[in-house]
Amino acid sequence: MNKATFYHAGCPVSISAEQQVLEALDKNRFDIEIVHLGEKTSHISEAESAGVKSVPTLFLNGDVFHINFGAAIRDLK
Amino acid sequence: MNKATFYHAGCPVSISAEQQVLEALDKNRFDIEIVHLGEKTSHISEAESAGVKSVPTLFLNGDVFHINFGAAIRDLK
Repeated sequence: MNKATFYHAGCPVSISAEQQVLEALDKNRFDIEIVHLGEKTSHISEAESAGVKSVPTLFLNGDVFHINFGAAIRDLK
Repeated sequence: MNKATFYHAGCPVSISAEQQVLEALDKNRFDIEIVHLGEKTSHISEAESAGVKSVPTLFLNGDVFHINFGAAIRDLK
């Protein structure tokens, strides 16, 4: 099972939209984790190490896909 | 069948990465079309009407998801 991690910061508008991207992923092949960095600030350093510069971001197979531009990760600290 | 359209402009680095996003979509539910706007400039106005501001972009269920930032669509004209 591959792992897909979706990092966000709770913006209601972007959540409703980006859930469409998650919903479109093949759940038979991907284990999807959703991390709210606004609430789980302890995960920010993990996200930064993965290369996340802004949220929302989809982390897939070791690569970072910044989706649109919500908030810079430094603003979440 | 839902439709997912991926617009790009041929950048080899981003293509190899973004193909991971397409590969992760559930092909049982989505009919995936890939449009190279650098070659098919006739599709640029269609992309602009859909709300595409830059490539690469994933167009899914009527919403536009700009992935990272490659090139502004005005630079493709």
